Amino acid sequence: MTPRRNENSRRAILTAALELLTETGYTAVTIEAIAARAGVGKQTIYRWWRGKGAVILDALTDGLPDVIELPDSGDLRTDLREVLRATVAEFADPRMSATTRALTIETLADDDLAAQVRDRLLRPQLDAVRARLASARDAGQVRPDAPLDQVVELLFGPLYHRWLLRNGPLTDTYADGIVDLTLAAVTPR
Amino acid sequence: MTPRRNENSRRAILTAALELLTETGYTAVTIEAIAARAGVGKQTIYRWWRGKGAVILDALTDGLPDVIELPDSGDLRTDLREVLRATVAEFADPRMSATTRALTIETLADDDLAAQVRDRLLRPQLDAVRARLASARDAGQVRPDAPLDQVVELLFGPLYHRWLLRNGPLTDTYADGIVDLTLAAVTPR
Repeated sequence: MTPRRNENSRRAILTAALELLTETGYTAVTIEAIAARAGVGKQTIYRWWRGKGAVILDALTDGLPDVIELPDSGDLRTDLREVLRATVAEFADPRMSATTRALTIETLADDDLAAQVRDRLLRPQLDAVRARLASARDAGQVRPDAPLDQVVELLFGPLYHRWLLRNGPLTDTYADGIVDLTLAAVTPR
Repeated sequence: MTPRRNENSRRAILTAALELLTETGYTAVTIEAIAARAGVGKQTIYRWWRGKGAVILDALTDGLPDVIELPDSGDLRTDLREVLRATVAEFADPRMSATTRALTIETLADDDLAAQVRDRLLRPQLDAVRARLASARDAGQVRPDAPLDQVVELLFGPLYHRWLLRNGPLTDTYADGIVDLTLAAVTPR
């Protein structure tokens, strides 16, 4: 195949994967169905991807920017609440949650896929929050010795924990509460 | 079978499951191997349990107390560091981590098993930490309006997040740092 045909097939495959994901949900998506909708043979997909998880990850990250920048309203609490409310909404959405659950299952059994999901899907988001915390620190709104990597985990960790254990509602109020607790931990005294 | 023979078989099965888990790791454990070691037929196991995850969960929780009490040294930081260091050590231990990973995979695909793992394996631990926080609140070491359920998630969430994403070392220093941040969030000003 020429590079051009490769790229056309690649786009068709990723588009088909994303459409099927939206229409039927992760579990029902198969390599066969992706191939059929994209008008390619199954072997074409297996030549470029190791399995369904890898295709879906590429479909989800295709076209995403490598670097995300968070809105900076000047008020850290407002900006963090916005991010955490959006994340909570993703976890609370049945279809999004099903995709996250299925991808998580695959990453727990596949170190390489885990690294890719982390670095391509999650890392830009975590880095954006870290950068926003750093600018707040420069503005004197976060104490200078706050360990920013851990502060990021203080924000997102509880959401993952609650989603994994299903031990409470995932709501805006919950997101706001986690932001408030985290800010109480890092606001200069 | 008499109830007595039931109980003997049950114990033999749980003991076999735990031994095999320790010797070979979760993935290699099969219902066949458990049955063979316990000296029972496979059908005996399937009559009482829905699958490997359910047997392993029973084996892990058998004999655990319903209510755990945390040591209370009088110093909240000391007590929480001890709990979080122990949890971090479990995540960092390859065999324990493999068991947790395998159980997590099964719970992500099985709501009923998820509820059982949460309520029987994790809940007693989370409740113990919550009770320790409540006694610290009564002693004036935690501010009276601190949302204790969320504080518990602030402690454990980051550990799960880091374990899931594998984006940093799971060490005593890390555990201590999370305790320090959490206490900064809830210590009366």
